[in-house]
Amino acid sequence: MYHKLRRAFICISPSLNLFLTRKQSYFFPCSGLRRPMSNTAGLVIPCTAAVAWEAGKPLVMERVEVAPPQAMEVRIKVKYTSLCHTDLYFWEAKGQTPLFPRIFGHEAAGIVESVGEGVTELQEGDHVLPVFTGECGECDHCKSEESNMCDLLRINTDRGVMLADSKPRFSINGSPINHFLGTSTFSEYTVVHSGCLAKINPLAPLDKVCILSCGISTGLGATLNVAKPKKGSSVAIFGLGAVGLAAAEGARIAGASRIIGIDLNPNRFEEAKKFGFNEFINPKDHDRPVQEVIAEMTNGGVDRSIECTGNVNAMISAFECVHDGWGVAVLVGVPNKDAVFMTKPINLLNERTVRGTFFGNYKPRTDLPSVVDMYMSKKLEVDKFITHRVPFSDINKAFDYMLKGEGLRCIISMED
Amino acid sequence: MYHKLRRAFICISPSLNLFLTRKQSYFFPCSGLRRPMSNTAGLVIPCTAAVAWEAGKPLVMERVEVAPPQAMEVRIKVKYTSLCHTDLYFWEAKGQTPLFPRIFGHEAAGIVESVGEGVTELQEGDHVLPVFTGECGECDHCKSEESNMCDLLRINTDRGVMLADSKPRFSINGSPINHFLGTSTFSEYTVVHSGCLAKINPLAPLDKVCILSCGISTGLGATLNVAKPKKGSSVAIFGLGAVGLAAAEGARIAGASRIIGIDLNPNRFEEAKKFGFNEFINPKDHDRPVQEVIAEMTNGGVDRSIECTGNVNAMISAFECVHDGWGVAVLVGVPNKDAVFMTKPINLLNERTVRGTFFGNYKPRTDLPSVVDMYMSKKLEVDKFITHRVPFSDINKAFDYMLKGEGLRCIISMED
Repeated sequence: MYHKLRRAFICISPSLNLFLTRKQSYFFPCSGLRRPMSNTAGLVIPCTAAVAWEAGKPLVMERVEVAPPQAMEVRIKVKYTSLCHTDLYFWEAKGQTPLFPRIFGHEAAGIVESVGEGVTELQEGDHVLPVFTGECGECDHCKSEESNMCDLLRINTDRGVMLADSKPRFSINGSPINHFLGTSTFSEYTVVHSGCLAKINPLAPLDKVCILSCGISTGLGATLNVAKPKKGSSVAIFGLGAVGLAAAEGARIAGASRIIGIDLNPNRFEEAKKFGFNEFINPKDHDRPVQEVIAEMTNGGVDRSIECTGNVNAMISAFECVHDGWGVAVLVGVPNKDAVFMTKPINLLNERTVRGTFFGNYKPRTDLPSVVDMYMSKKLEVDKFITHRVPFSDINKAFDYMLKGEGLRCIISMED
Repeated sequence: MYHKLRRAFICISPSLNLFLTRKQSYFFPCSGLRRPMSNTAGLVIPCTAAVAWEAGKPLVMERVEVAPPQAMEVRIKVKYTSLCHTDLYFWEAKGQTPLFPRIFGHEAAGIVESVGEGVTELQEGDHVLPVFTGECGECDHCKSEESNMCDLLRINTDRGVMLADSKPRFSINGSPINHFLGTSTFSEYTVVHSGCLAKINPLAPLDKVCILSCGISTGLGATLNVAKPKKGSSVAIFGLGAVGLAAAEGARIAGASRIIGIDLNPNRFEEAKKFGFNEFINPKDHDRPVQEVIAEMTNGGVDRSIECTGNVNAMISAFECVHDGWGVAVLVGVPNKDAVFMTKPINLLNERTVRGTFFGNYKPRTDLPSVVDMYMSKKLEVDKFITHRVPFSDINKAFDYMLKGEGLRCIISMED
């Protein structure tokens, strides 16, 4: 896949019309020049977007038209976006019904350009994080203190349109282009349901906090909101990708004294030390289940475990490696739909707990501002997750890095 | 089994030597007459016990000798005991290695007769509940706020001796008789590790609170300490035996507004109404999984469920019937060792929790006194669990009631 992509780059790079298209958008109305944003309210905005025309094929920079926001919608100018595995997964479209053409992207930060009818909590100029799931504020989930799985705006990977009228806001010469996760941030402008936008501290640097709108908060919240390790406790984290490292960041913040990383790829261990891990296990190095190795290392099991791989065997190991009496396993990774979680009932009856979490149990609008504030107060370290930066025109490089397993997060700057 | 037992009764009843043996014990030193207990401290006490000589055979009233308590042990005069399914299970000895002769009994209340060396927290005359599991106060579990699974005194169904010297304190003419669960309360006197005795309010009626030392606290604590339903919430309880009804009592105390009982035996439904249940489901009445029936009744699932049958399919149903986003399933019943708990990972990932509990997460010494106080303050209703009473000499009738599935708890009075 990597080599195919490299070849695709060679084909596309000379295709200057892409960049011309983008440059055109710098004049009107998506200009980089300062101008009152309200001038565009109510109008269609032509601008540049990276469109996925086919599964697994490099994105193509296109001039798209972005319709004005409808009731309860907000149009935002995306400032920075980054690439998450979920984009890659749906772009590859190996495990689900393909939906193309589509504008991917869901980890981002931007500024409100205009709001649709009925939007009262956001206004032009507000700094926001778009989120792939939402918070309507009215449903049983939003009213529950325990859930963030909004009935109305819960993640829907199959939907390529907006809720209000079941149509997309993107088009090219009148032909619709599908949304992705209600965010589609690989576009200079995008339209998002107001329930999927977290209004954040305007002083927060958007080129950093953009990554808090998905993976980092997912891992961080899994630890801080769900596993809740006590100071001095032991935490095992399965999978040392960005989500797993963010889970470790949560364990570091919570004051865990032992943070054990488990991954089949030992190349990840050195980098992971920056995130507070002090012990590592490669299950391939052992001829018995990793939960037994962990139990032996920790006098019976860890206090908490967090599963960030989505492999069902890792889920089972993550559960069975926690201590009886008080151990809590938190499941984050999503396995394939045929997987079955299996364990002996006695593992549960001996006072172990297993819980699943979605987006770290953060309610997008209510809770994400405080995650940004954790960064602003230097409690949460974000910079160490950012390993690459590319201009929007090089967005396919971000895919390339991820396909090669290089680095953690690549920031894509919409204005460079 | 019931009919065999009935026949056994007919054979045994005329065997007056049993009662003679018991009557002899009324004189010295297990006399019903008031006398300073300290007179017996340090001495062997001969008294009456109901001895199980063989699996599934009626208990035989025997004159046994009860040795004085050793270090960290306490000898108590049992006042009231009751029969729990665990006694029956190990008496039938169908699922484990038989250990006979043995004195069963673990749900009881008594008064301290004398204490062994090193026991400082109890003294002669204290009112106590013996518990089948303990609290040493020193191990990681005892020090954890979350666990009650003491490393030293955790339930051990195979052990028939005391910890101090690996010998029993019971004998008949010098031949040892095995203990059961470290309690063996089917004896007028018994020796228990001090860590397995909860000192309770001396004003509490022992013929009532004796049932708080096992099943009732197990169900009650599963709800109050682990499931923790909020006021107005919905709770599904699988299995309407004493433990399940006690779980419902917890739900009633917590202010749950819907308490749904699930049982394969609809004869239990009428009685269960006294315990706050307001809806019932017999899974046999439906041609689809009961979790689907419950989800439909409750707009997506109950807030909490508590599994008290020990059937692994009921465990899975209990888990899958809780609402996504916030549902918590608590597992109490112990299935057979070959059972496997299985579910699709998405059921967990959609923010459901499953937790096992042991003895309702109550720490015996620390927490049981407050359960007794809940009864004394009329918050907890205990009387409705007591459906039968028999004198000690009729203890086999208690087995008979349980084998027939008649009633809930049968109080066995040691002095009648």
